Amino acid sequence: MIKIICVGKIKEKFYREAILEYTKRLSKYTKLEIIEIPDSPLDDEINIEGKNILKHIKDNEYVITMEIDGNKLSSLEFASKLDNLFIYNSNITFVIGGSLGLSDLVKIRSNYQLSFSNMTFPHQLFRVILLEQIYRAFKINNNESYHK
Amino acid sequence: MIKIICVGKIKEKFYREAILEYTKRLSKYTKLEIIEIPDSPLDDEINIEGKNILKHIKDNEYVITMEIDGNKLSSLEFASKLDNLFIYNSNITFVIGGSLGLSDLVKIRSNYQLSFSNMTFPHQLFRVILLEQIYRAFKINNNESYHK
Repeated sequence: MIKIICVGKIKEKFYREAILEYTKRLSKYTKLEIIEIPDSPLDDEINIEGKNILKHIKDNEYVITMEIDGNKLSSLEFASKLDNLFIYNSNITFVIGGSLGLSDLVKIRSNYQLSFSNMTFPHQLFRVILLEQIYRAFKINNNESYHK
Repeated sequence: MIKIICVGKIKEKFYREAILEYTKRLSKYTKLEIIEIPDSPLDDEINIEGKNILKHIKDNEYVITMEIDGNKLSSLEFASKLDNLFIYNSNITFVIGGSLGLSDLVKIRSNYQLSFSNMTFPHQLFRVILLEQIYRAFKINNNESYHK
Protein backbone atom coordinates (compact mmCIF):
# COMPACT_ATOMS: atom_id res chain seq x y z
CA MET A 1 0.00 0.00 0.00
CA ILE A 2 1.41 3.35 -1.01
CA LYS A 3 0.15 6.60 0.45
CA ILE A 4 1.09 10.04 -0.81
CA ILE A 5 0.44 12.97 1.50
CA CYS A 6 0.73 16.32 -0.21
CA VAL A 7 -0.13 19.93 0.40
CA GLY A 8 -2.39 22.07 -1.72
CA LYS A 9 -4.87 21.53 -4.50
CA ILE A 10 -4.00 20.78 -8.13
CA LYS A 11 -5.34 23.72 -10.09
CA GLU A 12 -4.18 22.92 -13.60
CA LYS A 13 -6.42 20.50 -15.49
CA PHE A 14 -3.50 18.87 -17.34
CA TYR A 15 -1.74 18.08 -14.05
CA ARG A 16 -4.95 16.61 -12.63
CA GLU A 17 -5.28 14.42 -15.72
CA ALA A 18 -1.63 13.31 -15.56
CA ILE A 19 -2.09 12.36 -11.89
CA LEU A 20 -5.27 10.46 -12.74
CA GLU A 21 -3.52 8.57 -15.52
CA TYR A 22 -0.59 7.42 -13.35
CA THR A 23 -3.00 6.57 -10.52
CA LYS A 24 -4.88 4.35 -12.95
CA ARG A 25 -1.70 2.71 -14.24
CA LEU A 26 -0.43 2.13 -10.69
CA SER A 27 -3.67 0.41 -9.62
CA LYS A 28 -2.40 -2.67 -11.47
CA TYR A 29 0.48 -2.98 -8.97
CA THR A 30 -0.52 -1.50 -5.63
CA LYS A 31 -3.19 0.08 -3.54
CA LEU A 32 -2.65 3.82 -3.69
CA GLU A 33 -4.08 6.58 -1.56
CA ILE A 34 -3.49 10.28 -2.17
CA ILE A 35 -4.25 12.59 0.75
CA GLU A 36 -4.42 16.31 0.13
CA ILE A 37 -3.77 18.64 3.08
CA PRO A 38 -5.04 22.22 2.77
CA ASP A 39 -2.36 24.77 1.87
CA SER A 40 -1.44 27.21 4.64
CA PRO A 41 -0.72 30.60 3.17
CA LEU A 42 1.16 32.01 6.16
CA ASP A 43 4.75 31.24 7.13
CA ASP A 44 3.91 30.66 10.80
CA GLU A 45 1.39 28.01 9.84
CA ILE A 46 3.96 25.44 8.78
CA ASN A 47 3.54 23.57 12.07
CA ILE A 48 -0.24 23.45 11.63
CA GLU A 49 0.42 21.96 8.22
CA GLY A 50 2.89 19.56 9.83
CA LYS A 51 0.39 18.44 12.47
CA ASN A 52 -2.21 17.92 9.74
CA ILE A 53 0.22 15.71 7.85
CA LEU A 54 1.12 13.67 10.95
CA LYS A 55 -2.56 12.97 11.64
CA HIS A 56 -2.58 10.83 8.50
CA ILE A 57 0.51 8.79 9.41
CA LYS A 58 0.20 5.65 11.52
CA ASP A 59 3.02 4.20 13.61
CA ASN A 60 3.60 1.25 11.29
CA GLU A 61 4.15 3.37 8.16
CA TYR A 62 7.57 3.84 6.61
CA VAL A 63 7.73 7.55 5.79
CA ILE A 64 9.71 8.92 2.87
CA THR A 65 9.86 12.71 2.83
CA MET A 66 10.75 14.55 -0.34
CA GLU A 67 13.54 16.97 0.60
CA ILE A 68 15.81 18.90 -1.73
CA ASP A 69 18.89 17.93 0.34
CA GLY A 70 17.84 14.30 0.66
CA ASN A 71 19.36 11.19 -0.91
CA LYS A 72 19.64 11.22 -4.69
CA LEU A 73 18.86 7.87 -6.25
CA SER A 74 18.74 6.68 -9.83
CA SER A 75 15.45 5.16 -11.02
CA LEU A 76 16.97 1.68 -10.63
CA GLU A 77 18.16 2.43 -7.09
CA PHE A 78 14.75 3.84 -6.20
CA ALA A 79 13.01 0.75 -7.58
CA SER A 80 15.33 -1.49 -5.61
CA LYS A 81 14.76 0.53 -2.42
CA LEU A 82 10.98 0.20 -2.80
CA ASP A 83 11.31 -3.50 -3.48
CA ASN A 84 13.41 -4.01 -0.31
CA LEU A 85 11.07 -1.90 1.80
CA PHE A 86 8.06 -3.97 0.80
CA ILE A 87 9.73 -7.10 2.21
CA TYR A 88 9.52 -5.74 5.75
CA ASN A 89 6.81 -3.12 5.56
CA SER A 90 3.66 -3.06 3.50
CA ASN A 91 2.87 0.59 4.21
CA ILE A 92 5.01 3.18 2.53
CA THR A 93 4.05 6.82 2.81
CA PHE A 94 5.52 9.63 0.75
CA VAL A 95 5.22 13.22 1.94
CA ILE A 96 5.51 16.19 -0.42
CA GLY A 97 5.63 19.55 1.32
CA GLY A 98 3.88 22.71 0.20
CA SER A 99 5.34 26.09 -0.70
CA LEU A 100 6.45 26.57 2.93
CA GLY A 101 8.56 23.42 2.89
CA LEU A 102 8.25 20.70 5.52
CA SER A 103 7.73 21.27 9.22
CA ASP A 104 10.36 19.87 11.61
CA LEU A 105 7.60 17.75 13.14
CA VAL A 106 7.35 15.86 9.86
CA LYS A 107 11.11 15.75 9.30
CA ILE A 108 11.57 14.06 12.68
CA ARG A 109 8.98 11.40 11.78
CA SER A 110 10.66 10.75 8.42
CA ASN A 111 12.40 7.41 7.90
CA TYR A 112 14.12 8.39 4.68
CA GLN A 113 14.81 11.68 2.91
CA LEU A 114 14.61 11.49 -0.86
CA SER A 115 15.63 14.17 -3.34
CA PHE A 116 14.72 14.04 -7.01
CA SER A 117 16.67 17.13 -7.99
CA ASN A 118 18.58 20.19 -6.82
CA MET A 119 15.91 22.14 -8.60
CA THR A 120 12.67 23.37 -7.13
CA PHE A 121 9.56 22.16 -8.95
CA PRO A 122 5.97 23.34 -8.48
CA HIS A 123 4.19 20.96 -6.12
CA GLN A 124 1.66 20.15 -8.85
CA LEU A 125 4.35 18.99 -11.26
CA PHE A 126 6.18 17.26 -8.45
CA ARG A 127 3.21 15.05 -7.74
CA VAL A 128 3.24 13.88 -11.37
CA ILE A 129 7.01 13.24 -11.23
CA LEU A 130 6.73 11.18 -8.05
CA LEU A 131 3.81 9.10 -9.36
CA GLU A 132 5.66 8.44 -12.60
CA GLN A 133 8.77 7.27 -10.73
CA ILE A 134 6.74 4.97 -8.49
CA TYR A 135 5.03 3.56 -11.58
CA ARG A 136 8.45 3.16 -13.26
CA ALA A 137 9.76 1.40 -10.14
CA PHE A 138 6.97 -1.19 -10.29
CA LYS A 139 7.64 -1.75 -14.00
CA ILE A 140 11.35 -2.24 -13.25
CA ASN A 141 10.68 -4.57 -10.34
CA ASN A 142 8.31 -6.65 -12.49
CA ASN A 143 10.84 -6.79 -15.34
CA GLU A 144 8.43 -5.06 -17.65
CA SER A 145 9.71 -2.86 -20.44
CA TYR A 146 9.09 0.84 -20.20
CA HIS A 147 10.12 3.40 -22.73
CA LYS A 148 11.88 6.57 -21.75
CA MET B 1 15.81 33.20 -28.38
CA ILE B 2 15.47 29.74 -26.89
CA LYS B 3 15.29 26.62 -28.99
CA ILE B 4 14.44 23.17 -27.70
CA ILE B 5 15.33 20.23 -29.90
CA CYS B 6 13.74 17.00 -28.78
CA VAL B 7 13.13 13.52 -30.04
CA GLY B 8 9.76 11.88 -30.49
CA LYS B 9 6.16 12.98 -30.44
CA ILE B 10 4.12 13.83 -27.38
CA LYS B 11 1.35 11.25 -27.27
CA GLU B 12 -0.41 12.10 -24.01
CA LYS B 13 -2.92 14.92 -24.29
CA PHE B 14 -2.17 16.24 -20.77
CA TYR B 15 1.53 16.55 -21.58
CA ARG B 16 0.74 18.37 -24.83
CA GLU B 17 -1.45 20.78 -22.89
CA ALA B 18 1.17 21.34 -20.20
CA ILE B 19 3.76 22.11 -22.90
CA LEU B 20 1.35 24.49 -24.60
CA GLU B 21 0.66 26.28 -21.32
CA TYR B 22 4.36 26.86 -20.49
CA THR B 23 5.05 27.85 -24.10
CA LYS B 24 2.33 30.48 -23.76
CA ARG B 25 3.66 31.73 -20.42
CA LEU B 26 7.22 31.88 -21.77
CA SER B 27 6.18 33.97 -24.79
CA LYS B 28 6.08 36.96 -22.44
CA TYR B 29 9.84 36.67 -21.91
CA THR B 30 11.48 35.12 -24.95
CA LYS B 31 11.09 33.81 -28.44
CA LEU B 32 10.78 30.05 -28.18
CA GLU B 33 11.05 27.39 -30.84
CA ILE B 34 10.43 23.69 -30.23
CA ILE B 35 11.79 21.34 -32.88
CA GLU B 36 10.67 17.72 -32.84
CA ILE B 37 12.96 15.15 -34.46
CA PRO B 38 11.38 11.81 -35.43
CA ASP B 39 12.09 8.98 -33.01
CA SER B 40 14.39 6.23 -34.31
CA PRO B 41 13.26 2.88 -33.02
CA LEU B 42 16.53 1.03 -33.70
CA ASP B 43 19.68 1.20 -31.62
CA ASP B 44 21.96 1.65 -34.61
CA GLU B 45 19.99 4.70 -35.69
CA ILE B 46 21.24 6.92 -32.91
CA ASN B 47 23.69 8.61 -35.27
CA ILE B 48 20.94 9.31 -37.80
CA GLU B 49 19.00 10.92 -34.94
CA GLY B 50 22.17 12.82 -34.01
CA LYS B 51 22.69 14.13 -37.55
CA ASN B 52 19.05 15.19 -37.66
CA ILE B 53 19.53 17.14 -34.44
CA LEU B 54 22.74 18.82 -35.67
CA LYS B 55 20.96 20.01 -38.84
CA HIS B 56 18.92 22.32 -36.64
CA ILE B 57 21.88 23.83 -34.79
CA LYS B 58 23.72 26.82 -36.22
CA ASP B 59 27.34 27.72 -35.41
CA ASN B 60 26.39 30.69 -33.23
CA GLU B 61 24.12 28.72 -30.89
CA TYR B 62 25.09 27.86 -27.33
CA VAL B 63 24.06 24.24 -26.92
CA ILE B 64 22.95 22.79 -23.59
CA THR B 65 22.47 19.03 -23.71
CA MET B 66 20.41 17.30 -21.07
CA GLU B 67 22.55 14.43 -19.77
CA ILE B 68 22.01 12.36 -16.66
CA ASP B 69 25.70 12.74 -15.66
CA GLY B 70 25.77 16.47 -16.42
CA ASN B 71 26.04 19.41 -14.02
CA LYS B 72 23.40 19.58 -11.34
CA LEU B 73 22.20 23.11 -10.66
CA SER B 74 19.62 24.53 -8.32
CA SER B 75 16.81 26.58 -9.88
CA LEU B 76 18.61 29.78 -8.78
CA GLU B 77 21.92 28.64 -10.28
CA PHE B 78 20.17 27.67 -13.50
CA ALA B 79 18.46 31.08 -13.69
CA SER B 80 21.77 32.82 -13.11
CA LYS B 81 23.48 30.70 -15.77
CA LEU B 82 20.79 31.59 -18.33
CA ASP B 83 21.05 35.26 -17.40
CA ASN B 84 24.83 35.23 -17.89
CA LEU B 85 24.61 33.35 -21.17
CA PHE B 86 22.19 35.89 -22.63
CA ILE B 87 24.80 38.65 -22.11
CA TYR B 88 27.11 37.11 -24.70
CA ASN B 89 24.82 34.93 -26.77
CA SER B 90 21.23 35.46 -27.76
CA ASN B 91 20.73 31.92 -29.06
CA ILE B 92 20.48 29.15 -26.51
CA THR B 93 19.54 25.68 -27.65
CA PHE B 94 18.54 22.83 -25.38
CA VAL B 95 18.72 19.26 -26.63
CA ILE B 96 16.70 16.44 -25.04
CA GLY B 97 17.60 12.99 -26.33
CA GLY B 98 15.17 10.20 -27.11
CA SER B 99 14.95 6.71 -25.64
CA LEU B 100 18.31 5.83 -27.24
CA GLY B 101 20.12 8.63 -25.43
CA LEU B 102 22.26 11.20 -27.22
CA SER B 103 24.61 10.46 -30.09
CA ASP B 104 28.31 11.30 -29.62
CA LEU B 105 27.97 13.71 -32.54
CA VAL B 106 25.63 15.82 -30.44
CA LYS B 107 27.65 15.41 -27.26
CA ILE B 108 30.75 16.79 -29.02
CA ARG B 109 28.79 19.85 -30.20
CA SER B 110 27.44 20.48 -26.69
CA ASN B 111 28.68 23.56 -24.81
CA TYR B 112 27.24 22.55 -21.45
CA GLN B 113 25.89 19.33 -19.99
CA LEU B 114 22.96 19.79 -17.64
CA SER B 115 21.37 17.16 -15.41
CA PHE B 116 18.05 17.66 -13.65
CA SER B 117 18.14 14.39 -11.75
CA ASN B 118 19.82 11.02 -11.31
CA MET B 119 16.45 9.60 -12.25
CA THR B 120 15.28 8.77 -15.72
CA PHE B 121 12.08 10.53 -16.76
CA PRO B 122 9.94 9.85 -19.84
CA HIS B 123 10.90 12.31 -22.58
CA GLN B 124 7.33 13.65 -22.61
CA LEU B 125 7.43 14.56 -18.94
CA PHE B 126 10.98 15.81 -19.30
CA ARG B 127 9.90 18.40 -21.85
CA VAL B 128 7.39 19.78 -19.34
CA ILE B 129 10.02 19.85 -16.59
CA LEU B 130 12.52 21.72 -18.77
CA LEU B 131 9.95 24.28 -19.95
CA GLU B 132 8.82 24.88 -16.38
CA GLN B 133 12.39 25.46 -15.20
CA ILE B 134 13.10 27.88 -18.07
CA TYR B 135 9.89 29.73 -17.20
CA ARG B 136 10.89 29.74 -13.52
CA ALA B 137 14.35 31.07 -14.49
CA PHE B 138 12.80 34.05 -16.30
CA LYS B 139 10.54 34.74 -13.31
CA ILE B 140 13.56 34.64 -10.99
CA ASN B 141 15.66 36.85 -13.27
CA ASN B 142 12.82 39.37 -13.48
CA ASN B 143 12.35 39.37 -9.70
CA GLU B 144 8.80 38.15 -10.09
CA SER B 145 7.22 35.97 -7.45
CA TYR B 146 6.46 32.40 -8.31
CA HIS B 147 4.88 29.89 -6.04
CA LYS B 148 6.32 26.45 -5.55
